[in-house]
Amino acid sequence: MARIVLKFGGTSVGDIDRIKNAARKIKAEVARGHQVAVVVSAMSGATNQLVKWVSEVATLPDPREYDVVVATGEQVTVGLLALVLQQEGVPARSWVSWQIPIRTDGAHSKARIVDIDTTEMARTMAAGEVPIVPGFQGLSPEGRITTLGRGGSDTSAVALAAALKADRCDIYTDVAGVYTTDPRIVEAARKIDRVTYEEMLEMASQGSKVLQTRSVELAMNHHVRVQVLSSFDDALGSDLPGTLVVDEEEIMAQGLEKSVVSGIAFAKDEAKVTVTHVPDRPGVAAAIFGPLAAANINVDMIVQNVSLDGSSTDITFTVPKADLAHAVQRLEQAKADLKFAEVKSDLNVSKVSVIGVGMRSHSGVALKMFETLAAKGINIQVISTSEIKISVLLASEYTELAVRALHTAYDLDAA
Amino acid sequence: MARIVLKFGGTSVGDIDRIKNAARKIKAEVARGHQVAVVVSAMSGATNQLVKWVSEVATLPDPREYDVVVATGEQVTVGLLALVLQQEGVPARSWVSWQIPIRTDGAHSKARIVDIDTTEMARTMAAGEVPIVPGFQGLSPEGRITTLGRGGSDTSAVALAAALKADRCDIYTDVAGVYTTDPRIVEAARKIDRVTYEEMLEMASQGSKVLQTRSVELAMNHHVRVQVLSSFDDALGSDLPGTLVVDEEEIMAQGLEKSVVSGIAFAKDEAKVTVTHVPDRPGVAAAIFGPLAAANINVDMIVQNVSLDGSSTDITFTVPKADLAHAVQRLEQAKADLKFAEVKSDLNVSKVSVIGVGMRSHSGVALKMFETLAAKGINIQVISTSEIKISVLLASEYTELAVRALHTAYDLDAA
Repeated sequence: MARIVLKFGGTSVGDIDRIKNAARKIKAEVARGHQVAVVVSAMSGATNQLVKWVSEVATLPDPREYDVVVATGEQVTVGLLALVLQQEGVPARSWVSWQIPIRTDGAHSKARIVDIDTTEMARTMAAGEVPIVPGFQGLSPEGRITTLGRGGSDTSAVALAAALKADRCDIYTDVAGVYTTDPRIVEAARKIDRVTYEEMLEMASQGSKVLQTRSVELAMNHHVRVQVLSSFDDALGSDLPGTLVVDEEEIMAQGLEKSVVSGIAFAKDEAKVTVTHVPDRPGVAAAIFGPLAAANINVDMIVQNVSLDGSSTDITFTVPKADLAHAVQRLEQAKADLKFAEVKSDLNVSKVSVIGVGMRSHSGVALKMFETLAAKGINIQVISTSEIKISVLLASEYTELAVRALHTAYDLDAA
Repeated sequence: MARIVLKFGGTSVGDIDRIKNAARKIKAEVARGHQVAVVVSAMSGATNQLVKWVSEVATLPDPREYDVVVATGEQVTVGLLALVLQQEGVPARSWVSWQIPIRTDGAHSKARIVDIDTTEMARTMAAGEVPIVPGFQGLSPEGRITTLGRGGSDTSAVALAAALKADRCDIYTDVAGVYTTDPRIVEAARKIDRVTYEEMLEMASQGSKVLQTRSVELAMNHHVRVQVLSSFDDALGSDLPGTLVVDEEEIMAQGLEKSVVSGIAFAKDEAKVTVTHVPDRPGVAAAIFGPLAAANINVDMIVQNVSLDGSSTDITFTVPKADLAHAVQRLEQAKADLKFAEVKSDLNVSKVSVIGVGMRSHSGVALKMFETLAAKGINIQVISTSEIKISVLLASEYTELAVRALHTAYDLDAA
């Protein structure tokens, strides 16, 4: 017998039929003798309608009232799902966030979970009742309703699993798991059976939008075993049909052969900025990125080469495409101080990344990437590496070609 | 400066434009220097959608989960209205029922308000903030969400007005007030400026569905001055454009000439049942109505004539049309015990009532009713009277004719 938290996303509870489908999965897990708690999202579309109403009445809405309105979406789902389960003979009840409570900080519409008191809930679970909890929301220190921001339901589920010391957190969604790359681009993409938190984080932030980054961080910090799986398949979570996101140790301990590279990620939402002929002196990088941080612009890949002439250098980095104009404007304003020559920008770039914890202990992973891209005649504009990731920036039109070539080169193609 | 509770019903907050309209009225009352608290219903249609979902998932829904689902309707409105007011420069915040709290008993889906703690709310009102409260709901002794049943938002508003010791409770709805009778039947029907609680209760239970009966009882018990008025008119509540429901003393004290009869009500949703040749002995009435009460059938007009032959009598009463078949079945089952001759029933009846506190001190009111109906050739089947009401049962097809004739006879027609 295991204790499992099941989370159903918006499309998995999108209408009454989908809610009934979720209930069948819950009932089957209970029938196997598992202790089950459930976290649900709003019915797909519901949150958008609520947000639309808010935007129709206020240009800069008070986030406290925004939260009051949008938190109703999940409250509808918890009540309906509890009713369906009861109808199916499964003892169940809803727990809205202030009843548990799920305590958060006071950052309305983007709150962080501080604490979940599961004392009472664990007691009812031991007595055979299935608690149904709304994702995405909590209770502020002032006793008001908070929401965690988009995608927050994953975080709610992982946090509840941590608080309940659950054996696993099954995230039911509309995809069968995490893939070696986007199956829409590479037909031979394979579902990954097991992936480490670190790899998942790189994949999530690289654009594989299966799990929200915050939920993966939380799972890593609390060693919560997370499974991503499809609610549209027949298979049950306990049979592990999806992708398990776990500690590297668990993968090693099971003697599973871990491929060096787990997946190929790509992102098309960044723009490249190059600041040329920056005086090569201490503090100049801080001087460039200070104004951008002050403007809340997220800077990603940063590359600074050694100075060739001993007096000036070029600094290249990426920013979200939506922030490019703003970033360039901020840099131009600082030109007099920074004494650089020029700001160049390019929207026509993509970032392609090779990800795998295995590369820590294997040499030649980067070389294979560069050789593969060279063989296809693809020019690498910028390179940036971490312990478990190598990212390159290339011209957008080569994205699919590069992803497919790398997927094959690292032996990721399905047999 | 007065303290006023404003309540906006479903059609008065039916869409974003209607919510903005409600906000304008609130803002205007605040501008006049009044302390204002607001109670709102769900946007019209919202509750029906939520109830429909519940009915799609459960035949006999757990009322606790039913309440979790349907209570979201008002929560959406409080958030949106608070946002609109803030946008208009009026300090406002939503208070959901568990935050105040509005304590109810544990009778889910038909709970009764036990207590409203307005300490904190009164403090914020004194500081110039407008509290926006969801009608129709509260917090059970077990800490779960309750709803008060259909029409409960009026009750919430009156209860809040009582707790806040408000000077008035303005119920904004889609009619301009309480009329001397249904204007769809009598073109000359007039809006009543002032009506007593007792009269309003008789009108509400007689089928003038302007205010929910429970809210009028509550207002009477706590001497809350209630005004019914239209949110679709330009006039503001403080100018008293609607119908004031108040103590008889207030009407007398103002030296207002009170007409003997305030209004003519009618109901078409009752059926007549006659039990013939019932043995005329003590306890027989109890024996007849016991089985009906046990079956939760609401019995209204009851008439028992004196026994003519000294040994048996006929008993006539009305029940809701929807319960008629059930009532007849119960009586037939008891026939062996009761030893009556026959149960006769008639769906083709209407109840027409003349209502007015003035009739307590005026003779001839009933006589005028009987003469008026006789002059039109309308046969009276059953008569039942109270201190402030005379009701008769007549064949349905005479309803409109009777109402119009009585409206004229009691000088209620508009000049």
